[in-house]
Amino acid sequence: MQRILSPLDQSFSLSRVAMGLWRLADWGYSNRQVLGLLEELLELGVTSFDLADIYGDYRCEQLFGDALKLKPELRNKMEIVSKCGIKLVGSNNQFALNHYDSSAAHVIASVESSLRKMGIAELDLLLIHRPDPLMCADELAGALDRLVSDGKVRAIGVSNFLPHQIELLRSRLHTALVVNQIEVSLLHSSPMFDGQLDFCQREEVIPMAWSPFAGGALFEGDGEAALRVQACMEELAQELGMEPQQLALAWLLKHPAGMVPVLGSGKMARLRSGVQAVEKELPREAWFRLLHAARGRDVD
Amino acid sequence: MQRILSPLDQSFSLSRVAMGLWRLADWGYSNRQVLGLLEELLELGVTSFDLADIYGDYRCEQLFGDALKLKPELRNKMEIVSKCGIKLVGSNNQFALNHYDSSAAHVIASVESSLRKMGIAELDLLLIHRPDPLMCADELAGALDRLVSDGKVRAIGVSNFLPHQIELLRSRLHTALVVNQIEVSLLHSSPMFDGQLDFCQREEVIPMAWSPFAGGALFEGDGEAALRVQACMEELAQELGMEPQQLALAWLLKHPAGMVPVLGSGKMARLRSGVQAVEKELPREAWFRLLHAARGRDVD
Amino acid sequence: MQRILSPLDQSFSLSRVAMGLWRLADWGYSNRQVLGLLEELLELGVTSFDLADIYGDYRCEQLFGDALKLKPELRNKMEIVSKCGIKLVGSNNQFALNHYDSSAAHVIASVESSLRKMGIAELDLLLIHRPDPLMCADELAGALDRLVSDGKVRAIGVSNFLPHQIELLRSRLHTALVVNQIEVSLLHSSPMFDGQLDFCQREEVIPMAWSPFAGGALFEGDGEAALRVQACMEELAQELGMEPQQLALAWLLKHPAGMVPVLGSGKMARLRSGVQAVEKELPREAWFRLLHAARGRDVD
Repeated sequence: MQRILSPLDQSFSLSRVAMGLWRLADWGYSNRQVLGLLEELLELGVTSFDLADIYGDYRCEQLFGDALKLKPELRNKMEIVSKCGIKLVGSNNQFALNHYDSSAAHVIASVESSLRKMGIAELDLLLIHRPDPLMCADELAGALDRLVSDGKVRAIGVSNFLPHQIELLRSRLHTALVVNQIEVSLLHSSPMFDGQLDFCQREEVIPMAWSPFAGGALFEGDGEAALRVQACMEELAQELGMEPQQLALAWLLKHPAGMVPVLGSGKMARLRSGVQAVEKELPREAWFRLLHAARGRDVD
Repeated sequence: MQRILSPLDQSFSLSRVAMGLWRLADWGYSNRQVLGLLEELLELGVTSFDLADIYGDYRCEQLFGDALKLKPELRNKMEIVSKCGIKLVGSNNQFALNHYDSSAAHVIASVESSLRKMGIAELDLLLIHRPDPLMCADELAGALDRLVSDGKVRAIGVSNFLPHQIELLRSRLHTALVVNQIEVSLLHSSPMFDGQLDFCQREEVIPMAWSPFAGGALFEGDGEAALRVQACMEELAQELGMEPQQLALAWLLKHPAGMVPVLGSGKMARLRSGVQAVEKELPREAWFRLLHAARGRDVD
Repeated sequence: MQRILSPLDQSFSLSRVAMGLWRLADWGYSNRQVLGLLEELLELGVTSFDLADIYGDYRCEQLFGDALKLKPELRNKMEIVSKCGIKLVGSNNQFALNHYDSSAAHVIASVESSLRKMGIAELDLLLIHRPDPLMCADELAGALDRLVSDGKVRAIGVSNFLPHQIELLRSRLHTALVVNQIEVSLLHSSPMFDGQLDFCQREEVIPMAWSPFAGGALFEGDGEAALRVQACMEELAQELGMEPQQLALAWLLKHPAGMVPVLGSGKMARLRSGVQAVEKELPREAWFRLLHAARGRDVD
């Protein structure tokens, strides 16, 4: 599979499509089953695994780590991505409400917990999960630079940050922000128009796209936009011999910012089919037919 | 007539007001009549002529060229502006839908077609007509720089681009983007507040203003805002001895970003009167009375 | 009291909380009473006094100056802030409507009038009151730089400017813009999310926050958001032993951009209590509980 290389840090790359594990705790897989999934994905060339401290009520990192311990030599064949900065009300804490914490103390403690749970020495990529209105750029940048120089984190990035929030944090950092993970899909195409993806393309920040199928609404939703896109995908499936899932991914992959979609299914057959989108090229007119269906209107 | 000089490319300038030819095919003029219009405009000092590959179902450039061939020595007295990047469903193509194409292949082919149709060796200004969500900045910048170095295009710019879209394209270009042609009028004043014209003023990009009369709605519209502006213009016409058309243009010309309004009438009497706005100075209070009428509210 | 130092101009600082005098003409105070207020505030460490040419139908600067003349030695213990750029319909002018004027002539004349009315030789800080759509950055920057070099103004800034408007003006200035005074409160928290405060933090511009209590609506309003915030403040008042007014200010003071709230009460007891907020630290969860109440929803 192709890879996306970071122009800002040439030692850093992701597979063209990443695997998201935010539902790992929901699948009820044994450690061996998780290991099997990881191995099959690695064979397909999907080497980037996306986690966060909070996923699965703070349990997914542990489940991932437990599987990895069965075959530790896999560690060096993959990029492990995790996130921190959200404090989510959960079964193991006393938070009064969901909130953000981008303090140095929380970020460092969260990374150390992530490493411990996964049984690894270093995260390949740490993302700040959400922009915190209380973000003190000096303090957070200091913590991130230190995590990198301490060898606990290899590369850093952000998630759901708008350009001005990236510019603020970046202004105090020595280390490059190589990734911004944002929501993008046919049903959430605004980042293509509001400057988010233009900023990424200009500044050579790799965009990872979460919810590339709009949480399933792209295939099963009954909103007006979803129904229009479904009808369009049906036509194109016939014309181009591509499955809807492949069309939805090929639509993202064609964008020149070099987006890395984060898949989230636990079913290997589905993942295998999705991954084939990487080999397909969507014609320009087909791309605009899908955009037209999604927005319900002609280009200006 | 005054001229607007580009600080970014001191060999490039436009007349203070430009002539738009997007309706040239609708006027039913003979080549001699078109030539007459061009000559009268040149005498008034209106030397900048605005076209696009797609105008008039892809026919306007040819009509303009046919007139120009009757008196080729006029070529050097004018700036010929054209655009590309839109693929419009028309009588001479098989497009499934209107869409954009900012690929190098399309842009270069379109410029070559424009030169051929107009019978000229070089465009004075080429604009990318609309921001293409699939714009690969490296590819497009490469094509534009090559068109300039090949002598097919003297200067380049964009149209309907937001600041972040200009910043993306500019980040990969060797040649300056000297113009952004956007919609601005009393009924579309948002570019004065949302950063579009501030970006132009700061970066010394010349703004050309299309639809300066809001497609005629400024004088004949019956929307609330149009009616308020019409009433205000009637008062000011009395007080200042200026026609509504002159008021509308003087309102744009007073803006410090140095906007070049693009006129679109095919009637010489109307054009002649409009052009006189260049010599009139709208007082500051009158400018704000018109803004107040347009927005229906006081300044903050 | 702590102070906020400008990283852009290290000779410039404000007290952690400023006193706004826009209602000075409404209080009906004698010169001696005004003097008493100033003295008490200075004793509390509130040294920054915020005025504008237009406050109180253009009368507040004179009232402030009349009080100051009773004890001229106070002048050097305070920072006097004034503003210009708005032309307000008032009893002493013939304006047809409220409008803006950022011309060099108006700005210089307004500053000279401010100095005269207050009986001082120099403003510590001059703010351009509102972004003028007709702002010619070259002209205004030239006037501001000259006011500084002539010793009439010690530092300059803006008010209600969006980042792109600051960037435009700054691009032509030799002097730094050290302050942007904007509306921020629990009921107007958008500047924390839309880039305004991120720009200030990044560029080290001191944000002053006007209307920090949303014009009183925070305590007495009956809108949905106000009622939610009032209920939340009641809970927190119990838990933390802080008055609602102190909570509202501590909420602003905790923001890492280093906002200087502008108080507006004429009652010393109220001011004294508000000022105590500077010594209190709002816990992170309490901060987010207030944000949650204000927005009526969880963080994303």
